[in-house]
Amino acid sequence: MSIVLIHQRSDLNRFKKLLQKQLPSTSIFLYDEVENPDEVEFAITWKHKHGAFSKFKNLKVIASFGAGVYHIISDSNLPKDVKITKIVNDQLTKDMCDFVLMNCLNFIRNTPFHFKNQELMKWEATAYQPPKEVNVGVLGLGTLGKEVAETLVSRNFKVRGWSNSKKEIDGVESYSKTELNSFLQQTNILICLLPLTEETKNILNKDVFDQLPKNTCLINVARGQHLDEKDLQKAIEDGIIKTAFIDVFNEEPLPKEHWFWKNEAVQITPHIASLTKPEEVVTQLAENYKRFKSGKSLKYEINKIKSY
Amino acid sequence: MSIVLIHQRSDLNRFKKLLQKQLPSTSIFLYDEVENPDEVEFAITWKHKHGAFSKFKNLKVIASFGAGVYHIISDSNLPKDVKITKIVNDQLTKDMCDFVLMNCLNFIRNTPFHFKNQELMKWEATAYQPPKEVNVGVLGLGTLGKEVAETLVSRNFKVRGWSNSKKEIDGVESYSKTELNSFLQQTNILICLLPLTEETKNILNKDVFDQLPKNTCLINVARGQHLDEKDLQKAIEDGIIKTAFIDVFNEEPLPKEHWFWKNEAVQITPHIASLTKPEEVVTQLAENYKRFKSGKSLKYEINKIKSY
Repeated sequence: MSIVLIHQRSDLNRFKKLLQKQLPSTSIFLYDEVENPDEVEFAITWKHKHGAFSKFKNLKVIASFGAGVYHIISDSNLPKDVKITKIVNDQLTKDMCDFVLMNCLNFIRNTPFHFKNQELMKWEATAYQPPKEVNVGVLGLGTLGKEVAETLVSRNFKVRGWSNSKKEIDGVESYSKTELNSFLQQTNILICLLPLTEETKNILNKDVFDQLPKNTCLINVARGQHLDEKDLQKAIEDGIIKTAFIDVFNEEPLPKEHWFWKNEAVQITPHIASLTKPEEVVTQLAENYKRFKSGKSLKYEINKIKSY
Repeated sequence: MSIVLIHQRSDLNRFKKLLQKQLPSTSIFLYDEVENPDEVEFAITWKHKHGAFSKFKNLKVIASFGAGVYHIISDSNLPKDVKITKIVNDQLTKDMCDFVLMNCLNFIRNTPFHFKNQELMKWEATAYQPPKEVNVGVLGLGTLGKEVAETLVSRNFKVRGWSNSKKEIDGVESYSKTELNSFLQQTNILICLLPLTEETKNILNKDVFDQLPKNTCLINVARGQHLDEKDLQKAIEDGIIKTAFIDVFNEEPLPKEHWFWKNEAVQITPHIASLTKPEEVVTQLAENYKRFKSGKSLKYEINKIKSY
């Protein structure tokens, strides 16, 4: 019985050592090191090459290295009945809350404008709206979305959330799947924290943008594939999106020729809203491996029908 | 009995109308309109020309238009026994909390670095410290400092405060006047929210910077005169101050030739951390005028020995 690690990180050996410390008697291999694929029952992965799991006939669990699992479920060659788990980590959730809150404040306080003005040596004080007058809409009320919504409520924003079914969250006006259009209206800041699934792919498109008032802020901290980039470009030209804080991209690093780099309405960050620290996830992964070995139910197993 | 308004705002007439609505039977004059100076008992002012009050022999109250009063008390020609009041406004306090929190997050999340990298079309993800590992020191624990400290505690920063006497604030380690040096050590973000007095003028100088660890962030949202700009320049060169978010200046607008504009470690905002809205302060000023007329004690009267 052994574990295989598949990841594009260059420091995967460091992670292997950390995991080995917690599971001293378990064989742990990097993908290229595996000698007996039949012994592998547990895989830990981030963005594997589709098909890579086919050679592990006895694979029972695929554990994502992060909160997302689309990189796993989108592989049509997964072993049947394999269980899939995701990472839920308090610090990752808090980091996400900080990042989103920071950019909501940067938007209402015109930070990009002031940074630009400093370069132009221009002194221009503009009025701002306090959070109590700003409508924030959070797409997705899972672990991350819920806590982000609560964080924004605690800082006096007016917060709505949209999710498959209505949720009870203090101070948050909840909208269900069919109420997307009324959720979007009057939104000043739209935050995407949806899981990536076949249904939510490209959800940030013309249909959504057309429901928003002028001068809305978009914050995408979910996945690049949620966003239709052409429709965003049009929404910026039409004055619907005033500022887009984008942390996730279809291709990362973002290619040099991409229009995002040079568009003044787009503020890029290099996928740093919340960074997985190996130290913080290794314990959760080791624990799930132990649960698996002793026949217990897995933590944070995803529902394969919902895909998250 | 009448009120005089002295201010450099161009829209002072609008404020006069708002105040007149609340005090319909009171004579309210702009400085140049006053015909009988002896009738003026109440002045509302922001940065008057020193000496301007000498001609009002019966002046009893000078009300500041904002939270600061140094522009008043630094005038050596004030009428004897005149009472001085300041503005305390919940929204101004909240706005200040938002602004400081935003820049604490921008510092730990490297926002200026990412903005710059976008211009350079450079993709570079760097690690960040979560708030729970970041020491923030708040200079001044008055109304603003206390609430800023509490805001930062609520977002998981490690917070210390420095004030004349020790204060009891949940989650905040309090240092008194003589403990400045130990307060400064290990500070990662230093926030100035002191009142401006003869004692606190130029307090952000070499003696303070020399106590700080390398790569500290400075946030000055109090007054330009708190900061020794030459000493800041040296502290930046020496690697002590990594980023300085500066919202207040000795001269505003900041002169074109000032070195702040072009220094990459300095992030300028045009005195917008919290903006007084006439609508929000007019009621407080009218109420204090009524209290004065009916012989009641004034709200937010300053202690002239402490000067705040």
